[in-house]
Amino acid sequence: MTSGSAFAAAVTAPAQSSRLSVMNFLNEAANDYPKAISFASGRPAEAFFSIERWLEAIPLFQAHAAQSAGQSVLVAGRRIAQYGRTNGCVNELVAQQLRIDERIDCTADQVIITAGCQEALALIVPALCREPGDVMLARTPTYIGITGVADFAGIEIVPIEPRAGESWHRALHRTTQALRREGKTPRGFYLTPEFDNPTGTVLSEAERRSIIAGCVEHRIVVLEDNPYGMFRFEGEPTASMISLDSEGCVVYLATYSKSLCPALRVGAAVMPRRLFGSEGEARRLAGELSERKSFVTVNTSQVTQALVGGVLLAENGSLARLVDAPRKHYARNRDAMVGFLAHEFRDNSDVVTWNRPEGGFFLGVNLPFEFGQSEAVECARAYGVIVMPMTFFSLDGSRENEVRLAFSNLVPDEIESGVSRFARYVKGRLRSVS
Amino acid sequence: MTSGSAFAAAVTAPAQSSRLSVMNFLNEAANDYPKAISFASGRPAEAFFSIERWLEAIPLFQAHAAQSAGQSVLVAGRRIAQYGRTNGCVNELVAQQLRIDERIDCTADQVIITAGCQEALALIVPALCREPGDVMLARTPTYIGITGVADFAGIEIVPIEPRAGESWHRALHRTTQALRREGKTPRGFYLTPEFDNPTGTVLSEAERRSIIAGCVEHRIVVLEDNPYGMFRFEGEPTASMISLDSEGCVVYLATYSKSLCPALRVGAAVMPRRLFGSEGEARRLAGELSERKSFVTVNTSQVTQALVGGVLLAENGSLARLVDAPRKHYARNRDAMVGFLAHEFRDNSDVVTWNRPEGGFFLGVNLPFEFGQSEAVECARAYGVIVMPMTFFSLDGSRENEVRLAFSNLVPDEIESGVSRFARYVKGRLRSVS
Repeated sequence: MTSGSAFAAAVTAPAQSSRLSVMNFLNEAANDYPKAISFASGRPAEAFFSIERWLEAIPLFQAHAAQSAGQSVLVAGRRIAQYGRTNGCVNELVAQQLRIDERIDCTADQVIITAGCQEALALIVPALCREPGDVMLARTPTYIGITGVADFAGIEIVPIEPRAGESWHRALHRTTQALRREGKTPRGFYLTPEFDNPTGTVLSEAERRSIIAGCVEHRIVVLEDNPYGMFRFEGEPTASMISLDSEGCVVYLATYSKSLCPALRVGAAVMPRRLFGSEGEARRLAGELSERKSFVTVNTSQVTQALVGGVLLAENGSLARLVDAPRKHYARNRDAMVGFLAHEFRDNSDVVTWNRPEGGFFLGVNLPFEFGQSEAVECARAYGVIVMPMTFFSLDGSRENEVRLAFSNLVPDEIESGVSRFARYVKGRLRSVS
Repeated sequence: MTSGSAFAAAVTAPAQSSRLSVMNFLNEAANDYPKAISFASGRPAEAFFSIERWLEAIPLFQAHAAQSAGQSVLVAGRRIAQYGRTNGCVNELVAQQLRIDERIDCTADQVIITAGCQEALALIVPALCREPGDVMLARTPTYIGITGVADFAGIEIVPIEPRAGESWHRALHRTTQALRREGKTPRGFYLTPEFDNPTGTVLSEAERRSIIAGCVEHRIVVLEDNPYGMFRFEGEPTASMISLDSEGCVVYLATYSKSLCPALRVGAAVMPRRLFGSEGEARRLAGELSERKSFVTVNTSQVTQALVGGVLLAENGSLARLVDAPRKHYARNRDAMVGFLAHEFRDNSDVVTWNRPEGGFFLGVNLPFEFGQSEAVECARAYGVIVMPMTFFSLDGSRENEVRLAFSNLVPDEIESGVSRFARYVKGRLRSVS
């Protein structure tokens, strides 16, 4: 690479390794174009991190652990610094937080604490897809973290989306039948029903119920990822899929990367009590995840678990108060981005469109021309704005005319400049076409 | 399981799943037999953990990071709380510590910080063994963490040990040729040359050089695990394999679980500058590890990295001062264990023998009868002492007459009682045999 640029490398490599490079790119693009305004990465807003204060909550958890175990604070503190239980040491508090903040009826024994939600994906996908021909389902476009896990495990991900007028239940049936004819079996279905990354969209309760019905029928485990659920700006939340699931097919994935901060690397998988109606099946899957975890990270850092536990104790079990300010920040940013897009494209509203998500970190823009790897490089280099082609997240090469814009870790002034730069590129392209 | 015991489950399950359960067992055995004295787990001594003090070092690293980046401490602190570089943020300080404490000539760009050394194993084994027929080599018995990684990745581990009078170079040649005839190719060789877990033994410099020569010849990557190198009680340290490696075949694995504490989950892989003479090959392997890591833990917690970095700054780059007291503790415990064994078995020294390791956490005891799963359960239940059958760590079912005793996280009084209980069991068995 003559440019020595990780960004250029990511966007000019062939399809699969490009997919694999996107996550590294997200971490490193800012280094390559330090003056560019980046809409690339859905990082949480740094202004609301208060690590120093959160670290001060660790003694609260130590005292709590000491009391629970009938130990002195000294002994309990040392025990926290030791190797720990594979499934975690803050499971009670995490289950409580999910009950209060996400209205998920779960108990501590259903929770496996992971080194970020990504570790949960890395553990569960190969646990579900054990035989040749076992495949994962996902919507397209989808979160790059699931694609990377499957690629490295040598597991195919099959895109699924209902046709016009088709229910999810029917789409799952049709897709499963088609796969069976190829000797393939869908074992899991990854999705983010609330403020999807990359599209910002939400599945209705009816769609969620339809997915659950189809997945129970075909014995497909739903991986319900919910990093953005606490960042709803308006409107009513939809019930989580795990709370709509009576037979048991949903594994719920939680993270503290957005509600607290990513440096903790603390997430959780909430396992169903029964899997396809069977308590034994549910225990077997949970046991396999735990065993796999013991050979990947042994246990999640008990220092960062203690920090999460301490903050939850200090906040009476809920993160609602702490996420209030960042949620308002994200809402302002969404308003700013939608407003500046409307302003910049006021004469092009027939050909340039976007969605207005009710929460989360992302929205999608539709363009009247293809926007891929070379266009992203040109935007970054010549226009000083980094945007993500939606094809980066696509499983089937579709969405060639879309880009993902993240509005989370910026201030409105930056959003104004970035949208203006992006609009200058787009309007130049529109002129050269016409 | 009527007993509801993880320990009983681990030791009564069939061979492979027993292997997979040992690490969970190590975390959970203490719960099953709370009154038993445990020689099972090589946990570091908790009395030397000072998490509270180490947490106070985090601001040192924040100030250091701010100065390095030309940022305010506030901005640098928030940046640490954010997603970070996949390969880590304390690489300079870790490389410096390895140069000072382990005399390893390495630089920051060779270092990949991992969520404990176990994550490094989970990343590197599937990166090395990509084709059907690719296998790993390991000594037998070996550390259970490498066995678990290989089992879950579906990769065979082949035991290797020189025959009487045979060099390692020759043994590697013989084993490689034999594997080739079965269509198999050895890609990696895992070992702990300094105070091996489970045997406590050390490879001489001549043996290390012979292994390197054989591995370079057959393009086998050595995974040199060194968790115990800083805990040498007497005698001269042997040069690390990575420092004896001129062509480039050694990946060195470091951890802060023993020198600081396990709850940090901070380890590191030091990649060779050249792999089998090629800088490109070395870059390719390092790049693949980094990419895999981005889909497992994204990056290692920057909170715990900052703690390690802060402690290293406070200690002028070396952990020698901090490990002095625990090293003396482990030495006293080794002396106690060897002394009590000699006392208890003074009339059986012809049939019950053990080694006297010059460092580390473990020693092995040879018995004149087989000691396996049911014997371990009987010892724990009826005699109140937990010991590990060496077969748990064996790749080929050998070592039926040995047990591993860990002496790290106990005090001499407990070692005296535990050895006495174990001796009561062994002497009972000797009487019933004769």
